[in-house]
Amino acid sequence: MYQTFEQPADPTAAKDKLTDLRRVMRAANVDAYLVPRADAHQGEYVAARSERLKWLTGFSGSAGAAVITTRKAAVFVDGRYTVQVGLETDASLFDAPGLARSKLVPWLTDTLKAGATVGFDPWLVTISDFERMNRELAAASIRMKPLARNLVDQVWGIDRPVDAAQPITVQPLKYAGEPAEDKIARVQATLKDSGADYAVLTQPDSIAWLLNIRGGDIPHTPVPLAFVILPATNKPELFITADKLTTESKTHLKALVKVQPPERLRDRLRACKQKNKVARIDTTSAAYWFARTLGARKNYVSGRDPCLPLKAIKNTAEIRGSRNAHLRDGAALVQFLAWLDAEAGKTEIDEITVVKKLEACRAETKALKEISFDTISGSGPNGAIVHYRVSAASNRKLKRGELLLVDSGAQYIDGTTDVTRTVAIGRPSPDMRTHYTLVLKGHIAIARTQFPKGTRGVDLDPFARRALWQHGLDYDHGTGHGIGSYLSVHEGPQSISRAGMVALEPGMILSNEPGYYKEGAYGIRIENLVLVKDARIPKGGERPMMSFESLTLVPFDRRLIDQSLLSADEANWINAYHKTVLDRLTDRVPGEARRWLTEETKPL
Amino acid sequence: MYQTFEQPADPTAAKDKLTDLRRVMRAANVDAYLVPRADAHQGEYVAARSERLKWLTGFSGSAGAAVITTRKAAVFVDGRYTVQVGLETDASLFDAPGLARSKLVPWLTDTLKAGATVGFDPWLVTISDFERMNRELAAASIRMKPLARNLVDQVWGIDRPVDAAQPITVQPLKYAGEPAEDKIARVQATLKDSGADYAVLTQPDSIAWLLNIRGGDIPHTPVPLAFVILPATNKPELFITADKLTTESKTHLKALVKVQPPERLRDRLRACKQKNKVARIDTTSAAYWFARTLGARKNYVSGRDPCLPLKAIKNTAEIRGSRNAHLRDGAALVQFLAWLDAEAGKTEIDEITVVKKLEACRAETKALKEISFDTISGSGPNGAIVHYRVSAASNRKLKRGELLLVDSGAQYIDGTTDVTRTVAIGRPSPDMRTHYTLVLKGHIAIARTQFPKGTRGVDLDPFARRALWQHGLDYDHGTGHGIGSYLSVHEGPQSISRAGMVALEPGMILSNEPGYYKEGAYGIRIENLVLVKDARIPKGGERPMMSFESLTLVPFDRRLIDQSLLSADEANWINAYHKTVLDRLTDRVPGEARRWLTEETKPL
Repeated sequence: MYQTFEQPADPTAAKDKLTDLRRVMRAANVDAYLVPRADAHQGEYVAARSERLKWLTGFSGSAGAAVITTRKAAVFVDGRYTVQVGLETDASLFDAPGLARSKLVPWLTDTLKAGATVGFDPWLVTISDFERMNRELAAASIRMKPLARNLVDQVWGIDRPVDAAQPITVQPLKYAGEPAEDKIARVQATLKDSGADYAVLTQPDSIAWLLNIRGGDIPHTPVPLAFVILPATNKPELFITADKLTTESKTHLKALVKVQPPERLRDRLRACKQKNKVARIDTTSAAYWFARTLGARKNYVSGRDPCLPLKAIKNTAEIRGSRNAHLRDGAALVQFLAWLDAEAGKTEIDEITVVKKLEACRAETKALKEISFDTISGSGPNGAIVHYRVSAASNRKLKRGELLLVDSGAQYIDGTTDVTRTVAIGRPSPDMRTHYTLVLKGHIAIARTQFPKGTRGVDLDPFARRALWQHGLDYDHGTGHGIGSYLSVHEGPQSISRAGMVALEPGMILSNEPGYYKEGAYGIRIENLVLVKDARIPKGGERPMMSFESLTLVPFDRRLIDQSLLSADEANWINAYHKTVLDRLTDRVPGEARRWLTEETKPL
Repeated sequence: MYQTFEQPADPTAAKDKLTDLRRVMRAANVDAYLVPRADAHQGEYVAARSERLKWLTGFSGSAGAAVITTRKAAVFVDGRYTVQVGLETDASLFDAPGLARSKLVPWLTDTLKAGATVGFDPWLVTISDFERMNRELAAASIRMKPLARNLVDQVWGIDRPVDAAQPITVQPLKYAGEPAEDKIARVQATLKDSGADYAVLTQPDSIAWLLNIRGGDIPHTPVPLAFVILPATNKPELFITADKLTTESKTHLKALVKVQPPERLRDRLRACKQKNKVARIDTTSAAYWFARTLGARKNYVSGRDPCLPLKAIKNTAEIRGSRNAHLRDGAALVQFLAWLDAEAGKTEIDEITVVKKLEACRAETKALKEISFDTISGSGPNGAIVHYRVSAASNRKLKRGELLLVDSGAQYIDGTTDVTRTVAIGRPSPDMRTHYTLVLKGHIAIARTQFPKGTRGVDLDPFARRALWQHGLDYDHGTGHGIGSYLSVHEGPQSISRAGMVALEPGMILSNEPGYYKEGAYGIRIENLVLVKDARIPKGGERPMMSFESLTLVPFDRRLIDQSLLSADEANWINAYHKTVLDRLTDRVPGEARRWLTEETKPL
């Protein structure tokens, strides 16, 4: 199993830890200490060893920060985690649980006196977050003080997990599709006009993509933790722990980069600085440590990680890989859904059983490297929690008349998947069918649209919402995110959302996942991955257009479709999609599941 | 007539003018001189006296700039005017006509040597344009040099129009809906938290709105040219030529502001500066003169004109006024369209006849104060020129089998209108009907949509394009702009466009005007004004929603509607709209026109 169902730790355990932390805070001479849920790479997942926020406070969400002062403490989270943080933390130790992230600075200025100092680990705060906090706190005469040693690490004892050096593998060219030499040259070419002499890469998935390597340092994303100094010309330097290198990866990397131990990073940056070289740093994701090491602002310019726009556009091999991954993943999903349909009436099934069965179906493919994130298996009211993660405590039995929302994904060597299906357990209510159909209409609106060159994600997002809007409904998340090729399940720069200002380009893969959430009752989300392609220009058409190909191959639950709400075009789209699903998967699923698939994909 | 049809001036007349200008350039010791199409207020229309670009070069478009060096000259325009500038300027005097605005600085750096100076009038370039040009030119060691006296004015002789002091009128409270005292207090309240001690208002429509006055200094927009210094507390100062004031307006203004002669502006700003007061200036619309007068950046902050967001939300009286204006305007349009339908077959009609007849129909209302912009009357291929303005030279006779696009508007004391209808002359082709219906589908998609609080114009714009996109078509302009109340026909901050990042709010009025342009053949645009309103939440709806009310009341040309392309909902919308048009207008149009209206508004 790649997923655990551990119950929240006893929140009162935080008491002694806070006492210990306050002791070292006194020694470090700070009035407050910042504990973000982050590692030095600022990704979505961190190694167990970097779960400092969870260890200290009990809060296990994927984003947030605690602030500890000599007398008070508080955990700040975003809207997703307001409820969860209350369950996982001790209200006698932490101020009003569920404070919004935006309240962190006001809470500090209310709590601390002028002249106070806020200690933090410069590896765990991005440059732009530091600059914003520092400016806001300075207005109240409070100072941000970077500390060389992390104070939580000083008090986290024998139970702190150790770094197991996970071996680095070489991503075969047949899946990567482009030699790392060529990628390096392409990124270097973009650097030349950017006013920088070299780029500092801090995002592990960019480095893994650039060098055609994969690793296992964090859950769910097959990347090694590393840094790169990439000069506009000459060989890049890769900073990585040597014991992660296998014979194969050592040979592969030797041809591409100069491998350096992580401890050398500081000296190498200082050397660049001394030669008056200007660095390009993505200040929204690079740790403040880099700004501090490079010193004056003249030594670096702020610019997006130069790998991002190139990595986002998948090449032919990556697209072929994704199609193959989706055949495999679709077949696993069909077996899972056929099992669920057959068993849900007969045996007791709960949310955890669902997660286990689904992972087992994927494991049967013999190609599963990892799940791409913890499966969201939300029945009834749990389905309405957008980022629900089932634990032994929250686990619910599936009940007739309820909905089950399952959002899951897999890491295969040829591609990363992410798919959501919402299914009825027993007979759904008319409202459930209405809401499901409205979400499906939004999903189809995205899947069917054609759009001209230059169209950004922000321009498509409203199509997914229109049917809901006409009924006075909406959902509070974006419609789609980018996804990697055997890499991160969430990657930029493109998205289909209110903030999606990047033009879509052929080769990009995004999710298409509108939803509807009825608090306390049920959640609905329908997600396929889609590939941006050049569209055939229709007769009489004048402009180059693009469109989406749906990569995900899993039937929709027909019991939840209210045909009276569909246009003929929408019904035709569903029928054509179901026919494709059947054609592509029928030979890949055995007996019972094949019968189920045939039944589920019949024309409406 | 509020519109003229003058032919372009003889382009060769520019030769002597350039010689004269180069003479004064030498005297002023500059190597180049910038002649933008602008006055000190940077609005869309300028007084005849400020049409320096047109006088010098022959180019009569509403946006552009010329640059003259000792040996060369060029006119830079945006995409709208690429063709026109070629017809109106002499290619032997001006470099490759139709150079894009973005090429102005590169052209200068190619043409001039390092160390050269570019003279300009600091009243005619915005602060942000100056800062950008100055930065870009500095990279080539070229200097921007503000000149106290405008060099074109020095050579523009006896034929330069004089300022006729147009009297200022007081906008009655029954139309303005809010006393100017209250508006001033509301704007002052927004200033208090903005880090500025006072705002400098440079946009005449903001000043007219704020003080409930109107004027006649520029065509089509009923505003006086003036400036205001608005302190966060205390009485504002209005800088305006005294001979524009009538007894009534003098009394009205005396209670609100301190009236100052324009010549006092510089001293008053310097006095503010000396008291270390910080100004708020809209650097995107304020002239560089202000930055220069205020000196160091610490003396001002850049911030949007504080009147804009308040002016954009119409009050009850303004909404009532707009509805009344649209009843009046709709009746005039119906008479015009009925006449066109009856006569187009019988008599020879050309584009200018159309403009004259339409203005005559509006004048018959006895309420017409002005037209809100030069009527666009484009038949056949002229319809495909988005900002076409008919002249005696371009004038075409209406021909059977062609389309006529008429985009026009009126200024009434209770509201400003802007409406576009495209009509068939004789029998339209199948392609014309298809394209018209696709544009109409986009128009209806906007008109019918519901959207939640927080929705921005950028989120709605794609709805207007989707039907065209599905056919491989699109249009290259925004879908909608804000509009004033007996003020500017184009006003911000809201828009329905790719750049529309401002949330729509109840009370805003925008245009809804998708189009399609077949170059060399025909143009189609369908425009109503729409009012943003709180929507009735449908049964089962959960979120506060907004929707549009179509204010414009003019039938669509049924000959151009291909019903087979419409959904039932779309056809129902047209029928309901046509019924409203008939109900509201039938008593307002006489005999023949009423019969025509009844026929045209029958259910499809």
